[in-house]
Amino acid sequence: MPKIIDHEKRKQLIAEATWRVISKQGMKGATVRNIAKEAGMSLGALRHYFPSQDRLLEFSMNLVKERVMKRIQMITASPMPPKEKVVSALMEIIPSNETTRAEMEVWMEFVFHYRNSGLPEKGNDGIRDGIAHLINLLNSCGILKPNRDLDFEIERLYALIDGLAVHAVMEPDRLTAEKIRSTLERHLDEICIFPH
Amino acid sequence: MPKIIDHEKRKQLIAEATWRVISKQGMKGATVRNIAKEAGMSLGALRHYFPSQDRLLEFSMNLVKERVMKRIQMITASPMPPKEKVVSALMEIIPSNETTRAEMEVWMEFVFHYRNSGLPEKGNDGIRDGIAHLINLLNSCGILKPNRDLDFEIERLYALIDGLAVHAVMEPDRLTAEKIRSTLERHLDEICIFPH
Repeated sequence: MPKIIDHEKRKQLIAEATWRVISKQGMKGATVRNIAKEAGMSLGALRHYFPSQDRLLEFSMNLVKERVMKRIQMITASPMPPKEKVVSALMEIIPSNETTRAEMEVWMEFVFHYRNSGLPEKGNDGIRDGIAHLINLLNSCGILKPNRDLDFEIERLYALIDGLAVHAVMEPDRLTAEKIRSTLERHLDEICIFPH
Repeated sequence: MPKIIDHEKRKQLIAEATWRVISKQGMKGATVRNIAKEAGMSLGALRHYFPSQDRLLEFSMNLVKERVMKRIQMITASPMPPKEKVVSALMEIIPSNETTRAEMEVWMEFVFHYRNSGLPEKGNDGIRDGIAHLINLLNSCGILKPNRDLDFEIERLYALIDGLAVHAVMEPDRLTAEKIRSTLERHLDEICIFPH
């Protein structure tokens, strides 16, 4: 195996260990020592890949982002009716199964950690940009109903998505995947006319 | 001054000191010692009012809730056109000025603390109930457009409010009070017909 791939793979394994530690113990458990133990490697080996805890957390955070993006790209490229495609893509951001729930919990820990640490913000999570892209696409395809205010629709869908995401973490029993999906579908039906 | 009022007032002063400590140092700074210092009293005096940190946090959390409710009741009782009344009441939940911003930051710290502590959940924050009440009221007054699905409108407005609240904390410069207000107004205009 070429060395460069091995190196990236190792970093991914460490990032995955980081998520597991955070989702079990919260951010305060995410010490370099605990993460090395979870990844089954020595502290020295881990430091070789990530000289500081901040670098490690940033890498892990970006990996969450990349994975979500990859899943959304796969949905976008697949042959589905437009409405199902849009709803399925949005469902990848909202915690509704084990994977998305763990991602969101870890993500909230990250965001909270950075807010409290006084460190500079690590940029936005890209969700607003993704939703702006989606609304503009629906508009240029003629799926969005005519004369809609695009800025308003972006702001509203963005708030709706993150509100549902927070509620899904807080009240997983009440806000089932089915309920989230039907809320999104009804909202989209109001602002779009989907071709069959 | 009757003793009972003095007692309640003292508890309020301690709760306010608790908020200041949390909003400056986060939950990890909210030790009984730090709070006593901020309130300008001895550890023993504070313990007289709140035997445990959990009791103190619960009292402080409920006080936030009560204050928001009192402000909303004042708005509801005041002579304003219906639309302005609804928007103003909702604006009390979303961080858009110093008071609501501090309340929301402290609230998020509380919620996060309880989620991570493994303590039983302290009930919901009452926002969903308030929004359900509002939608039902708009419907029975004939202000909500006919044939709306009430469950959907409650779930959507609840997610919209909390999504805007989270974004207002994360991006205070982008999401100004004006922008929040206009987003709410447009959404309400879509689902309601307000009398003039």
